[in-house]
Amino acid sequence: MYDGIVQDLIDEFGRLPGIGPKSAQRIAFHILQSPSFDVSRLSTLLGEIRDKVKFCEICGNVSEQDRCSICRDPRRNATLICVVEDAKDVAAIERTREFRGLYHVLGGAISPIAGIGPDDLRVTQLMQRLADGTVQEVILATNPNLEGEATATYLSRLLHTLEIRVTRLASGLPVGGDLEYADEVTLGRAFEGRRTL
Amino acid sequence: MYDGIVQDLIDEFGRLPGIGPKSAQRIAFHILQSPSFDVSRLSTLLGEIRDKVKFCEICGNVSEQDRCSICRDPRRNATLICVVEDAKDVAAIERTREFRGLYHVLGGAISPIAGIGPDDLRVTQLMQRLADGTVQEVILATNPNLEGEATATYLSRLLHTLEIRVTRLASGLPVGGDLEYADEVTLGRAFEGRRTL
Repeated sequence: MYDGIVQDLIDEFGRLPGIGPKSAQRIAFHILQSPSFDVSRLSTLLGEIRDKVKFCEICGNVSEQDRCSICRDPRRNATLICVVEDAKDVAAIERTREFRGLYHVLGGAISPIAGIGPDDLRVTQLMQRLADGTVQEVILATNPNLEGEATATYLSRLLHTLEIRVTRLASGLPVGGDLEYADEVTLGRAFEGRRTL
Repeated sequence: MYDGIVQDLIDEFGRLPGIGPKSAQRIAFHILQSPSFDVSRLSTLLGEIRDKVKFCEICGNVSEQDRCSICRDPRRNATLICVVEDAKDVAAIERTREFRGLYHVLGGAISPIAGIGPDDLRVTQLMQRLADGTVQEVILATNPNLEGEATATYLSRLLHTLEIRVTRLASGLPVGGDLEYADEVTLGRAFEGRRTL
């Protein structure tokens, strides 16, 4: 619909997750027409990003160095490892400021439909980290969906051979949410996991 | 929350219209982790786009040449000019295939709140195009919202001094909406039912 390069840019933005054709068009025109938007900065960042960003050799989190800032921090509790699917989950948990241990990023979850098995995840690396006996508890913080639950079940079986406490994040009602909008499964879990007050 | 450059990339994407922090994070990780996404292509396009894309010297539409493909096309009806706010609106109208005349892109709409007056729009250029008497009808296709209506009213008064038919797109466009989001059928109907002002 547009001449050459404008349409190319719209198409490229349309390939990104969560951006439909209308949004892609709006973004392309913003880049073209907004004097305040520094297009060279974004262009340069995109050119460098894949070369500059590595994955932490210990936990698999994103990092600009061989080891991420969390693994390098001596104040973190090294007896506690929180296992997550993705580096985005590390950031989400860090925002809570509730957890002071270390992480282990699996790089996905077990999904027979998508053809992802335990060998495609960083499971061997996790077992190696647990070998020296420093870690006393592994918190399984995979997503509370089908693939995440399957991964947690697989890992908990594997870890029960070691003398390490294995825990799973609680499922229940989201704080600030409305009971009538909770789905049946979540509400069921909230009942199962009820605590004495 | 993330180390250096990853957070920089998330921040840059967050500056684009319609992309919140969560979407920006999702996009940044897609770019980092998806092998199928050609990041160099987007980077190169962004580096070139502002140098390569000009605005048509006649109508103000986006173009890679001095004159856009519509103004260069001898099959277009040069007696008819459709006045729009934005180049995105040209693309929207072209998709209807209802209109075979030429365009004039104002580059916005009159908005006292945003401090945009007639002098900030390509109004003088429009008057110059009408001076030689070729154009017999001007269709005012500014958005059917407050600013668009004000702009249409302003232009219709200005154009009544010339002996040119001045029309406005029919209502049928949802009032308060944005022209670029109208579906083809609605926009096509609006062309059919245009009224003399």
